[in-house]
Amino acid sequence: MSKSPVDALVAARKSGHGLPAGFYHDAEIFERDLQQIFLAGWQYAGHVSQLPKIGDYLLFEMAGESVIVVRSEAGYRALLNVCRHRGSRICQQQQGQAKRLVCPYHGWSYALSGELLAAAELSDEVDRSRLGLKRVALDEIEGLLFINFAAKPSPFRILRHRMGGALKAHGLADLKVAHSIDYSINANWKLAVENYCECYHCRPSHKAYSKGHQLAVPRDQWLEGQAQANQLAKASGFSQMVDGTWLNAPKAGLECQYAHYPLVNGHVTGSEDGQPVAPLIGSLQAPVALATDFQLGPNLFGLIYSDHAVLYRFLPVSVAETVCQVSWLVRAGAREGQDYALPKLIWLWDTTTREDKTIIEQNQLGVSSRYYRPGPFTSMEVFASRFVDWYLARLDGQNHDVIAGR
Amino acid sequence: MSKSPVDALVAARKSGHGLPAGFYHDAEIFERDLQQIFLAGWQYAGHVSQLPKIGDYLLFEMAGESVIVVRSEAGYRALLNVCRHRGSRICQQQQGQAKRLVCPYHGWSYALSGELLAAAELSDEVDRSRLGLKRVALDEIEGLLFINFAAKPSPFRILRHRMGGALKAHGLADLKVAHSIDYSINANWKLAVENYCECYHCRPSHKAYSKGHQLAVPRDQWLEGQAQANQLAKASGFSQMVDGTWLNAPKAGLECQYAHYPLVNGHVTGSEDGQPVAPLIGSLQAPVALATDFQLGPNLFGLIYSDHAVLYRFLPVSVAETVCQVSWLVRAGAREGQDYALPKLIWLWDTTTREDKTIIEQNQLGVSSRYYRPGPFTSMEVFASRFVDWYLARLDGQNHDVIAGR
Amino acid sequence: MSKSPVDALVAARKSGHGLPAGFYHDAEIFERDLQQIFLAGWQYAGHVSQLPKIGDYLLFEMAGESVIVVRSEAGYRALLNVCRHRGSRICQQQQGQAKRLVCPYHGWSYALSGELLAAAELSDEVDRSRLGLKRVALDEIEGLLFINFAAKPSPFRILRHRMGGALKAHGLADLKVAHSIDYSINANWKLAVENYCECYHCRPSHKAYSKGHQLAVPRDQWLEGQAQANQLAKASGFSQMVDGTWLNAPKAGLECQYAHYPLVNGHVTGSEDGQPVAPLIGSLQAPVALATDFQLGPNLFGLIYSDHAVLYRFLPVSVAETVCQVSWLVRAGAREGQDYALPKLIWLWDTTTREDKTIIEQNQLGVSSRYYRPGPFTSMEVFASRFVDWYLARLDGQNHDVIAGR
Repeated sequence: MSKSPVDALVAARKSGHGLPAGFYHDAEIFERDLQQIFLAGWQYAGHVSQLPKIGDYLLFEMAGESVIVVRSEAGYRALLNVCRHRGSRICQQQQGQAKRLVCPYHGWSYALSGELLAAAELSDEVDRSRLGLKRVALDEIEGLLFINFAAKPSPFRILRHRMGGALKAHGLADLKVAHSIDYSINANWKLAVENYCECYHCRPSHKAYSKGHQLAVPRDQWLEGQAQANQLAKASGFSQMVDGTWLNAPKAGLECQYAHYPLVNGHVTGSEDGQPVAPLIGSLQAPVALATDFQLGPNLFGLIYSDHAVLYRFLPVSVAETVCQVSWLVRAGAREGQDYALPKLIWLWDTTTREDKTIIEQNQLGVSSRYYRPGPFTSMEVFASRFVDWYLARLDGQNHDVIAGR
Repeated sequence: MSKSPVDALVAARKSGHGLPAGFYHDAEIFERDLQQIFLAGWQYAGHVSQLPKIGDYLLFEMAGESVIVVRSEAGYRALLNVCRHRGSRICQQQQGQAKRLVCPYHGWSYALSGELLAAAELSDEVDRSRLGLKRVALDEIEGLLFINFAAKPSPFRILRHRMGGALKAHGLADLKVAHSIDYSINANWKLAVENYCECYHCRPSHKAYSKGHQLAVPRDQWLEGQAQANQLAKASGFSQMVDGTWLNAPKAGLECQYAHYPLVNGHVTGSEDGQPVAPLIGSLQAPVALATDFQLGPNLFGLIYSDHAVLYRFLPVSVAETVCQVSWLVRAGAREGQDYALPKLIWLWDTTTREDKTIIEQNQLGVSSRYYRPGPFTSMEVFASRFVDWYLARLDGQNHDVIAGR
Repeated sequence: MSKSPVDALVAARKSGHGLPAGFYHDAEIFERDLQQIFLAGWQYAGHVSQLPKIGDYLLFEMAGESVIVVRSEAGYRALLNVCRHRGSRICQQQQGQAKRLVCPYHGWSYALSGELLAAAELSDEVDRSRLGLKRVALDEIEGLLFINFAAKPSPFRILRHRMGGALKAHGLADLKVAHSIDYSINANWKLAVENYCECYHCRPSHKAYSKGHQLAVPRDQWLEGQAQANQLAKASGFSQMVDGTWLNAPKAGLECQYAHYPLVNGHVTGSEDGQPVAPLIGSLQAPVALATDFQLGPNLFGLIYSDHAVLYRFLPVSVAETVCQVSWLVRAGAREGQDYALPKLIWLWDTTTREDKTIIEQNQLGVSSRYYRPGPFTSMEVFASRFVDWYLARLDGQNHDVIAGR
């Protein structure tokens, strides 16, 4: 889009206030969001535990794009799920196992690493070496696989350098995905992220959550709370707060943060009664009444307890449709039914996410009014407000990461 | 939109003929319709009988807008259903009862009159007196509540002055809404109104209706019929014909008319057998074989019989989607099951409206053809033709009523 | 649309490769497709056997247009299914019988030949002779009825001259439509036609089809196969190959071709076991192991066996939605249940078309990727490649055929 309309909207934004309505339903803004953020930055695609064997694959799908994340003989690969012949989707199941990637249309077959292996009747004049499946960048941090559509991706090592140590202590790489749910939310992705970024709404909206979790509080008390939390964290061998978040992210997808906060009322984990629902993770010998919060990129949020971790990923489908994928991770060796029961494991965040879906959709309806004017953020919405500042900077910024040929 | 495309379409219209196709499916024309007519004029929102107690509210919803019409200690109020904090919808039920209007998202609470009462952790530097729910103008005529989104609404007193006396004689303020149905019609709102404005289609399309109602007839006979009707009306203490309709409406929402026509074949009301289906209304001592027709604004039509009234409201949802709300009103004290039976009360107009829904949707399909050319109106379509003339004048006209900030 | 965007896309196309993605999802390109191809050329509308009696009609529907194809006293007629009064659809059933065409809205009635017969209360000043239903051009070749929306249609006699003789030998005019199915495909019409134009995909995708049909093969072997086929054809009194297809079509709708290929493995028709499923057609005394392939216009394909014929028609609904109508024709006098059984008759092409629907939809998903780049056609995709060349020439070409007033 011509830059001016965005400039006008950016200018229209009153500092300390929410975004003008246009950012939540303008189709050109949405395409800009995709180009500047989602197609330019690192996106969480899955956990290594989901691809135990060579040939195991899963699909990453976002805004009409589909990527095959596969474990090849040579390691993990991300390949565009589009045949180089006529453009058909190759893999059609969300997860699977394959020796080769064979297009169901005309039978062109590709190695797990993407090279074209067979294409009947294709002229010898055609250079097959140039017809492998398009590679998408892939990297890993503590068992978390990330992909990047950019032609020149931001250097992932920066993220690993900043966050690797902190995440290692929790043994993230030694977990497995016990369960995962996709929640379809009829709202713009930013309303969903803003909702995740503040707990001002927890008291009125999340009864279950509020029982065991400290509600976000004014900035000063919040820092206090984190001081105590960091004590507990230190004693448990965890890192201190890492705050490289938002505004100082050098490039798309390198935003990150890591922090702790104490649980309340004798709760030691995020469950209905606050008691453990799975075996302890990492090197913990005993549960610690702590929640560890982290974030990798603008749309992946993690919550680590003593016995399990929860990952929250927000992916846009269209300007007013977002998929929130929630994954519950437990120690790799834990056996369902014996060491943990799914209903108890997922209860808290399934309940909370269903509540959020409703809230966020009602928010989208409201900001669509011609007469909506953004209101002021409160002191309990510091992170939502920072997200908005970060977003405007990123949206407005030059971006050299967009894939070649776009 | 730039004015020229509309000018071109207006110019393309052949007088005495229907509207060119563009007016029924062009998205920019639709937005113009909203700005010049629906968001600039007075809209029927409900009947006082629906809000008997302080705290009772109902929602008015149109083209993505939602307004809370509530009975406060200080009287009826219309408030934009959008929280001043993050923009969430506040009331989510179509009707309800509340002591305060509390946003379900972050708990901001508002008085029934709209003032902001509580907003936790909101900085004291923020002027709360400026954060009340946005008021939408509201006024009343004989129990009928109207709202207006305009910053400077047209003076409603003009409408009350013109129509108040005529409506009073029928005791509209002393009725109650016995039943209401929303019919979703997949067609542009103008095709729905044009359909209501002529009875040329009644003979082929409405068998039930035609049994008891005089079909529209050529202009001269029509005036004859009204002469007789006015005799009956006079005897019953009703007003004579009031015709301030369409073209001479000074501003948006002030269009009006009021007229009578005789029922036929010994029918005294609009029911399957033509016999009363509810207690007499107003000051009538005996049924009178008369139908009284009135209109307030471009999209509210009323039909008054001796024993009940029917209100027809057309509201646009999108360029090719309209909601027709039909309400049946009876004397306030009448008891369902004893004084009236719903099935008999609603039979005629429920049947007729279902027939019209099909007709109008087939009309939308036809005018969407690239080869459709508007045809000539007949002498039995005088009012539809006048509606079209009025519409073009209104659409084209300058409009100083649009809400501030738009 | 301004021509330049198309020029850019045309320029972007690499010869010997598929079309750039824009051609499959750009709304302006789609409107261009309609104007240059579907609304400008001849479209197959039905077979004379579907309209045995005067007053029998069927509807032709495409991209929002609806045409009544009716058998009048004066012969077959194609009439726009839009009333000249208010624009309502007149016929609402896909097939029917009528003495007159009466609009259900206001009762205007038209003769089967389109003249306006009755319009109550229409002013005498209006010239009724100018208010007949809009005629759409109609012509016939061997029992196949074609219509054309153009104001100055391409001369159909050219098509009849080229193809009439070839089709006559198969007795197409003496067949009847035994069954017809509309398959809704969520993809652009061109992906559906490209799929029909090549059999490179038959081996991987169509097990059933491949049992009895020669798979398309490299150009040279293909010509060999046709040589043999032409021998068989000659012996059976059929014409030799007629190839007037694509590039040398003088005007929209006159594209055509006619060819034969031998069936394999002792199959003599297109059925599950390769044995006849209906009485022999045309003047055949014995089955011949031959499939005869023909095409009339860009989107009607025919396949003629010794005992039945199959017609394939592709019509666009929207840029990414196409209806593929498959019709099975048998000798007119054949009696269902005695001379043929529907399940056996339709089995092969119903199975194959369901497979193609899936393939084509997966293709549409893939080409919608921002990173899709067209790949090279193989030697087994000669006809798909020729279709693409033809399409670009037609899309780009001047077109004097568009209906008056457009």
